[in-house]
Parts: sequence; C-alpha cells; structure tokens
Amino acid sequence: MINNITEIINKKANKKELTDQEIDFFVNNLHKNIKKYQVSAMLMAIKINGLNDRELITYHNAILNSGKILDLDENRFDKHSTGGLGDKVSIILAPILEAMGIKFWKLSGRGLGFTGGTIDKLESIKKFNTDYSLKAILKKDNANHNLIIGQSKNLIPADKYTYSIRDTSGSVDSTELIAASVMSKKIAMGAKNILIDLKVGSGAFFKTLNQAEKLGKKLRLIGEKSNRNIYIIYTNMNEPLGKSIGNSIEVKEAISFLKNEYKDEKLEKIISKIAIEFYIKKNNVSLKEAQEKYDHILKKHKGYDAFLNILQNQKVKIKDFNEDKIFLPKHSYRIIANKSGYFKFKNLEDLGYFLIEIKAGRKNDHDSIYSHAGVDFFVKNGDFINKGDLLAKIYSKERLTEEQIRRFENTYFLTDKKVEIEEIILKEEKW
Amino acid sequence: MINNITEIINKKANKKELTDQEIDFFVNNLHKNIKKYQVSAMLMAIKINGLNDRELITYHNAILNSGKILDLDENRFDKHSTGGLGDKVSIILAPILEAMGIKFWKLSGRGLGFTGGTIDKLESIKKFNTDYSLKAILKKDNANHNLIIGQSKNLIPADKYTYSIRDTSGSVDSTELIAASVMSKKIAMGAKNILIDLKVGSGAFFKTLNQAEKLGKKLRLIGEKSNRNIYIIYTNMNEPLGKSIGNSIEVKEAISFLKNEYKDEKLEKIISKIAIEFYIKKNNVSLKEAQEKYDHILKKHKGYDAFLNILQNQKVKIKDFNEDKIFLPKHSYRIIANKSGYFKFKNLEDLGYFLIEIKAGRKNDHDSIYSHAGVDFFVKNGDFINKGDLLAKIYSKERLTEEQIRRFENTYFLTDKKVEIEEIILKEEKW
Repeated sequence: MINNITEIINKKANKKELTDQEIDFFVNNLHKNIKKYQVSAMLMAIKINGLNDRELITYHNAILNSGKILDLDENRFDKHSTGGLGDKVSIILAPILEAMGIKFWKLSGRGLGFTGGTIDKLESIKKFNTDYSLKAILKKDNANHNLIIGQSKNLIPADKYTYSIRDTSGSVDSTELIAASVMSKKIAMGAKNILIDLKVGSGAFFKTLNQAEKLGKKLRLIGEKSNRNIYIIYTNMNEPLGKSIGNSIEVKEAISFLKNEYKDEKLEKIISKIAIEFYIKKNNVSLKEAQEKYDHILKKHKGYDAFLNILQNQKVKIKDFNEDKIFLPKHSYRIIANKSGYFKFKNLEDLGYFLIEIKAGRKNDHDSIYSHAGVDFFVKNGDFINKGDLLAKIYSKERLTEEQIRRFENTYFLTDKKVEIEEIILKEEKW
Repeated sequence: MINNITEIINKKANKKELTDQEIDFFVNNLHKNIKKYQVSAMLMAIKINGLNDRELITYHNAILNSGKILDLDENRFDKHSTGGLGDKVSIILAPILEAMGIKFWKLSGRGLGFTGGTIDKLESIKKFNTDYSLKAILKKDNANHNLIIGQSKNLIPADKYTYSIRDTSGSVDSTELIAASVMSKKIAMGAKNILIDLKVGSGAFFKTLNQAEKLGKKLRLIGEKSNRNIYIIYTNMNEPLGKSIGNSIEVKEAISFLKNEYKDEKLEKIISKIAIEFYIKKNNVSLKEAQEKYDHILKKHKGYDAFLNILQNQKVKIKDFNEDKIFLPKHSYRIIANKSGYFKFKNLEDLGYFLIEIKAGRKNDHDSIYSHAGVDFFVKNGDFINKGDLLAKIYSKERLTEEQIRRFENTYFLTDKKVEIEEIILKEEKW
C-alpha cells in the first residue's frame, strides 16, 4: 500500500514509523504525483514528530540521490556552519586551505533572518561569480582552485524543492530535516572529510549546547553511514565573530585577516583549528608540523595570494579589483560609551534584527540588501570600557533616527560587575 | 506582525499559542494571500500540537463566519453522528421528527473510509435531490419539511476548503479541527439545539469512550460559547447499528422501521432517545408525554407518511416511487454457521473494509460505489447460534470469490463462552 501518499502522511502525523519504501516513495515523487500541499504537510509532520535514525538515513539517501553526486578521487574537505553574526570563516578559510594544498569546494547560501550568508558577502566584490552549473563546476579551470559558490540548479533538486517549501511553511527548524539538507549538499559536492561548526548562543539557531548536540549527533550519524569523516566543533555565538558584521565590511575584515594586518583572537582560533585539523587529516602529520605550516602561510600572506587567485577564477578581473572600493558606506555613526564598566552583549538576536533594519540582512528571501550596511565593534564581551571610549561604528545607506541609535545601544550593556569571558570553542568531537 | 503567515505557522509548529488576530488572519486569508501548501502545513501543525480552548473558539468562529449563517427564528434541531457501520439514524429520524412537528434541516456527507454516508444511501432512491444552494434551502416549499441535503456550495466555504485539504494531507483526525468543522456546519444551518451521537468502538473513529469524550468536550465548548444547547450521547459501535449495512439496503431497513414492520432494539433505542429528547426540549413536556407521542407516530406510520412527503419535497415523484425497486442486488450469498456457539463480531473495521471491497463504500472520494452492495445480519453479538443457522446475507454486483467469502467469515466468530451483551447507549450528557 505504498502508493497512497495520504496514508503515508497520516502515519507520520500519528507518530507511526515509516517504512523505507514509504520514505522513498515520498521523496521520489516530490515533483511528480505528490501535490505541493501534501509535501508541506508531510514536512510539518516530520518536523513535529521527528524521524528515527533508520528513517533519517533513508530520507537523507533519497534526498541525496535525487540529483547527481560528484564522485571526485581526491581527499576533499568541506565545512558547514549553522550560521551566526559576523561569521566570515569560509571567506578566509577557502584561500588559506588553497595555499595549504587542501581541496575545498564550498556551496554557500544567502543570509536569511538574523544571520548572514557567505554568498551575499562575496557578491559585494564586483563581478564575483557564484552561479555555477554542475558542468561548470567540473571545468578544468576549477581543478586547482577552491570554489565558493551558490547552490547549483541541478544539485540535489529534492533538497532545493523541500527547502523552498519549508522556508515558507514553518518547518525550517527540524533537526532531522536540517541534518539531511546539510549532509546531502556536502556529500553531493564530493566532500570526504566534513567539519561542522555548530554555533551555540543568543546569536545562533541553537541557544544551548544541549540543543546543538542533538543536531551534531544526527549529522555524524548520516556522515558515518555515508562513509564520510566528520569533525564537529561547537562554538560560542554570544558575541559576534570577529570585529565586523555586514556584507562588504566582512569581506574587508577577511582581507585584513589574510594579509595578517589584524587578528581577532576568537576568529583566529576557529580558522586555525579548522585549517590545522584538515592539514593533519590530509597529510597525516603532527600537530606541530601543521601549526607551522599554517603560521607560515599566514605570515607570508599566501592566503591573500590564493584569495586573489580565487577571485580571478570566479571572474573578477584583478586589474579592476580595488580593495579600497569594497566597503564604501554612505553614512557612519560613532557609538561612544556614556559610562564606564565591563562590556557585554545582550541577546544577539536583537543585534541581528537591527542589522536587518539597516538592510545589512534580509527578513524575507526577496528583500534586497545594502551591501555596505553593517557594524564594526571595537570591544568584546568582558572588556573594561572608560566613559567616552569608542564602542562601535554603524554604517548605513539612510540616515539613522535617534530611535534606531537607541535601539542599537540597547543590544549591549556596561556593568560594574566583572563579565566572564567565554571560550570560543566550547566542545569538539574529533574525526 | 500578523501579516506574515510563515511566522504564524512557525509559532504553532513550535507549540506556541496563537493570538486571536493570528488565527483570524489565517482563516480570513485562506483563499487569498495564503498558499494551499501553507494551509496544509498549518492544519498539520494544529492537528499535532492542538488548539487550546480560546484558540479553538476563535478558529471556529472564523470558519463559521467565512460564509452565510442561516438565522432562523424557530427552535431548530439538528444531530450529528461521528459515523459507523449501518448508521441510518438520520434517514429514519428526519421523517419521525417531521411528524412530531420538530424542524430538522440536516446537512449530511458521503461515505469515506470504512463508514457510510447518508447522502450515498439516499441517492439510491431515484431522483432524490440532495444538492441545494443556500437560496434553494430557504425556498418556501421547504418551510414545512425536514431536509436532508449535501453540503451547500456557499455554506462555510472555509470549512469546505480546509476539509478538502485535510482529507488528502493527513490532518483529518484532529479533535479540534473536527469539532470546529462539525459545529460550524450545524450553527450555519440555523440549529439551536444540537444532539451529538459519538460512536465508540471497533467500527468507529474513536476506539474508547475516553477518546470520544475529548471530542465531546470540545463540541460542547463550541456549542455553549455559541449559545447553542448541546446534548451528547456516546453509543456503542462494536457491532453494526441495525440489521443492514450498505446503501439501498439501509434505505430499505429505514422504510421497514418507519412502517413499524420491524424493530431492531438497539437502533430503536437511539431513534427514540433522540426523538423524545427533542420533543421534550421543544414542547417542555414530561418524558411520559413525549414517549406516548413517539409511540403514536410510529404505530400510526406517521413517520412513513412524512418520509413520502420529504421524498416529494426533494423531487421524487411519488407515483414513480416503488419501494420494491430500491434494493435490487445482482448476487446474494447466504452465510451459514458451520458450528454452534455464541456470536461475536471481531474488529468492525475489517467488516468496513470488506464492504469497500464489494463497492458498498469508497476508499477515495472519487471511487464509485454500487448502491445495492451490502450485508444483512440475522444475528447480534451474544446470540446463541446453532450449526446451520443463517448468519448473514451478502449482496454484490460481481460474483464473490471463495477468498472473499472467507474474508467475510473472518469478521466474526462463534465461541463456547457466553458473550457479554453491551449497552447501546454508553453514556449521555444532557442539555
């Protein structure tokens, strides 16, 4: 009786286990016999009632097999972050890995809700192309370069279709559906070694380590059942990552990082952790040797050289590329401490929504953004601040109102009590 | 922020309470801004996560107000059964009530799944019309007659639309959605006094009294908040109601009942209970007086006379109406006891599915039925049967296979142990 979709939906709606055949029938007929309103109902039933491990593996495999899977010989690496404020890791990591000889082809997304997206950020570089078909990905020119591209049209169509439905019908935040969506993209792109950066905190999807670990477990399960090596880091998102939040402003920060001009300690910890673990995994060397390699790359600006190569490979003409023209905001506002005390961010979501308000992010996927909008922070959680110190600068297209400034100032506070400085890497689960 | 349907669905999907505005926004925009796939996701979230009492009342009122509400002066009565095998109560009750001077305009449905539908049954009478627009319902001719009609096109469009979605996307069996759907139909049809017959047992939607009481509570809540009088009876569906199950065969049984030729004790108990409680409520008389009225109507065949009037009012020409031509099955099979013992039905659902197989019912709403297919039972749960006694007759369009007969014989058993005879009315909750 697997040909009746209503019965299958009914089963999941009533918390019954689905057979492998039933799950395959659902995924294989998404674009065919099954109506869109039945798909959304089923995804909602899965979001609320969940999938057990067997169901999840079957569901993932069906989604993965809806399109082509790149079967690449090499020992390819990939990473995935669940998103947060100021997360420019992929932009810095891709060139550093290229310089370290590590193959890294990254599918990235656009920003939605209070977290940003790598593709939006990179598109603030004029002519940077992120739109690749599967055929274009496999072109010879790309063989020697790391890629950061948007989701390809013919890669995992079932994921693309179900995601577009989930996004507007309330079933985005399902541990199982997220796990299948993330892993199918990594595996389809040919990655053999996958590092997952699960953000935890007020500026992340997961507010507690415990919640994030639930997703971590599912991601590892799928990865290992698919013969992939999985490394998970749980990282702190109670303050923005690095100094800048926005789009072009984060590209600017990434370039500073690659040129070794500036170093945010916490951002550096994540970048070096991933680069070094990948290098050890690929070359079977000691931690010391990997660390030396990484330090050398950074010191010699080899990551920056690779960045320019990546730009060129993705259609930017280097002779026209002018770093100083990437970030050109219309208005800027200096935010000064009105008293002394220890600095601490409040709920980071509020900062995220402020950034949406100044068009650094989008609420709905058809909203437009202003790529130069953003914020620079000159302080971190726990810093002692004197009255009159510069805390932040806000950059915007339109003039900000008094009320908007007030709203921004309400995203942090200054206190007499010492503020605990939290670790950036909260936990790691190795290969 | 009530203009974002995705946020509203998200709230319910994450078990948060919806505001009245959010619920109104959802229902009022069903056919407008909200996509069908968003409606089905929301209904699934409601099915699984439920609605609290305030949410339910708001949801019901919004559904009710999506169309016209008949505001009739009279003290109108209605009843609703949650469905079971052999339930021909409405067909018998409508004319008896007409003869007792009680106004009863009944919207009925078609059979789906293992339970039958009044409209299918009545359509086995040639030319019987059940298709009425709201305007046609209010025509003068109908003023003096009870009506049994199918759901009108312009009555509660939001119920019609959501039901059609729920039916094929797994959210039919939601206590709250059922309650709102049932009550909005009764109230829109102008009923002031509503009796609910909640079926309990293996041949019913609710397997236990406890489950049925949950729906009963919601129905009463909505009814009382809408200033309607509610009477609930919980009745036994561990055996078919009356002697016959099918379509034209049940009309035949109803006619026998109205002519006082035959009396099934349990069917009689339900009919007389409803008719008498309605009569007392309307006329404020004693139970004894109501009972005498009912007995008189039945004895004098006044219910049968009213039945003919109802037929005539609903376009049947009485001169062409021939009772003997209602039920004319092609094949019939006598089922004989192959041993002695006490008779007992097994899971009545299996009998329901057997009836679907011989086309007395439909599995999907586009399936066709054969109106003469059905079964007559000559025994009840607990009867002592001698080997060779006639247990039942099966009527069908096609010849039955040995395997089908075997399947039928597997819906009951004969045992040496005495079988307990269960009450037909398990519980009642008065006005």
